[in-house]
Amino acid sequence: MHESFTNVRERDWDTDADGEIRLAVVGCGGFARGVVLPSIEDCDYLTPTVGVSGSESNREAAAEHGLETTDYDGYADGDLADSYDAVYVATPNRLHLPHIETAAAQGKAVISEKPLDATSERAEQAVETCEQAGVPLMTAYRMQTDPLVRRLREFLDDGGIGDVTRFAGDFTFPVLAGSRGPDQWRLDQELAGGGALVDVGVYLLNTTRFLLGEDPESVSGHTRTSGPFSDVDEHVDFQVVFPDAVGNFSASFSGHPTADYTIYGTEGTVRVYDAFQPNRGRRLVVETGDERFEIEGAGGGELREEFDYFAHAVLTGQDIEPDGRDGLTDVRLLEQVYASA
Amino acid sequence: MHESFTNVRERDWDTDADGEIRLAVVGCGGFARGVVLPSIEDCDYLTPTVGVSGSESNREAAAEHGLETTDYDGYADGDLADSYDAVYVATPNRLHLPHIETAAAQGKAVISEKPLDATSERAEQAVETCEQAGVPLMTAYRMQTDPLVRRLREFLDDGGIGDVTRFAGDFTFPVLAGSRGPDQWRLDQELAGGGALVDVGVYLLNTTRFLLGEDPESVSGHTRTSGPFSDVDEHVDFQVVFPDAVGNFSASFSGHPTADYTIYGTEGTVRVYDAFQPNRGRRLVVETGDERFEIEGAGGGELREEFDYFAHAVLTGQDIEPDGRDGLTDVRLLEQVYASA
Repeated sequence: MHESFTNVRERDWDTDADGEIRLAVVGCGGFARGVVLPSIEDCDYLTPTVGVSGSESNREAAAEHGLETTDYDGYADGDLADSYDAVYVATPNRLHLPHIETAAAQGKAVISEKPLDATSERAEQAVETCEQAGVPLMTAYRMQTDPLVRRLREFLDDGGIGDVTRFAGDFTFPVLAGSRGPDQWRLDQELAGGGALVDVGVYLLNTTRFLLGEDPESVSGHTRTSGPFSDVDEHVDFQVVFPDAVGNFSASFSGHPTADYTIYGTEGTVRVYDAFQPNRGRRLVVETGDERFEIEGAGGGELREEFDYFAHAVLTGQDIEPDGRDGLTDVRLLEQVYASA
Repeated sequence: MHESFTNVRERDWDTDADGEIRLAVVGCGGFARGVVLPSIEDCDYLTPTVGVSGSESNREAAAEHGLETTDYDGYADGDLADSYDAVYVATPNRLHLPHIETAAAQGKAVISEKPLDATSERAEQAVETCEQAGVPLMTAYRMQTDPLVRRLREFLDDGGIGDVTRFAGDFTFPVLAGSRGPDQWRLDQELAGGGALVDVGVYLLNTTRFLLGEDPESVSGHTRTSGPFSDVDEHVDFQVVFPDAVGNFSASFSGHPTADYTIYGTEGTVRVYDAFQPNRGRRLVVETGDERFEIEGAGGGELREEFDYFAHAVLTGQDIEPDGRDGLTDVRLLEQVYASA
């Protein structure tokens, strides 16, 4: 096993900084309440203090996590602005921009869910607003802070499988499963900016860009849709062409849930299973000419890592790698996939 | 485990026919000598009797398998035509047509290696020649006779993973590995008709068409090449769009050897590892909502199956599924991938 994987949990960005920041959660929907809030309870550098929602029941749920709460007007008016140092925007995609603008006007650092907004024009405006206000902006690409993914990047950089020539992968998230019906915003073209590509395909795109450390030269794709998905892409199959590698990816809003990718190199392959589910331990299978090793249940816990990484950067002034421009790059690429489809 | 897989070895085409046929092997290169001849020694319906080669050492090697031998002129002149009932064409791709024409003129059944020839015009001429002569023509798609692949088709037809929505897969064959240098015909555009797409990508294309039981509406692709491969595609990434499914595939002439594909359905996935290597036991992992099962070392031995299937069809007059038109369809599709690349 390569030395990159001997201590998967090690943080390669943590300078043991002093202090912590207080976070307002803007948009207390299912993901923020059910996944994020429980994940960030024991962060080292961050405490959630405020919850913003238009729904009374969501505000009540946030209050149970010990948060002060307000609605969107209260947030826009800065009612609780003295109670937070940074803002996490977790609303539907098309509503990110105004909340980012509010945070920037209040001088608060921002971490925004992906995609940065529903269109590249709006995402660009979000980036420029934060740059002009001098506030940090992070796009919430949690895979970039997944411990296993960071070790994997080291391993690839170190030539672990020779030169990387290709990626392949699929992320299928059955969006109508469980209690989520067809009225959700993810199936609304205007609110979401797209369907499976925007919501889950972006994981494959961004993770590949992160692991390769470069941007594609071109993208193309094919979309399919049916029934309740008619407004957005239910299935997308897309190709991402880098200077020396190609990614062949797919994403779906229906079907048996899967999330995995394979990295092909001149001297080996890496397969990552359970690749994108929140906080899930991942399974990694590495094959090279010399050896085969498997790591089970490594990585995951990436949401706590993500928010600590963000807070640590805010406290220390360190560069944020998945910054606003990283998010903007993806929104532009997603639009190019749709244009070709 | 689904009942399709309880008896993987069972032949679903064998009528316990009488008789056997005698086979001439036309082109005794590495694959014919090293893989095919050892595989067909104990066929039920076929005995190799004649070997044709332009190389004296290859003829000597064929003679060690007990074959009468001649060179290509002798074959064209019908010198040993009384010693065989059927012809296996295993020359470089662009030379298939003349040997198929010779066999048809001699009234012999033909099994030709894939692709059927190097261009669709030539492949079409091969098909029409055999049709006019009334001789059976099979394209040697060995995966169609792999026992596991046939059971897998049953399983999919039976709705084993719901509706199939997507395929993904890679076949990487490091063609310069071992004793094979850059002078081989597989790297010669005119002799081969293309590179990785034609030689190994076609496995993904044909197997998918076989498993789905339908033909694509469109194909597209992207090729890359370097160094010794400059005449042909070293890497190809291609998308195959069926009416209700899409295949995202890749194939390479360099890199760590891999051969696997995944089938995605509305209710499950099937992963096939070690999918295309000759005679290799395959590994199958099936996940559905209800269960997960894994079959290791099933299938393989498909070359003996292939030649017995062919001989059985010749003896009984049964239709050949991977017939000449099946091979022609693929050559046309491969040309369309190149045209888009």
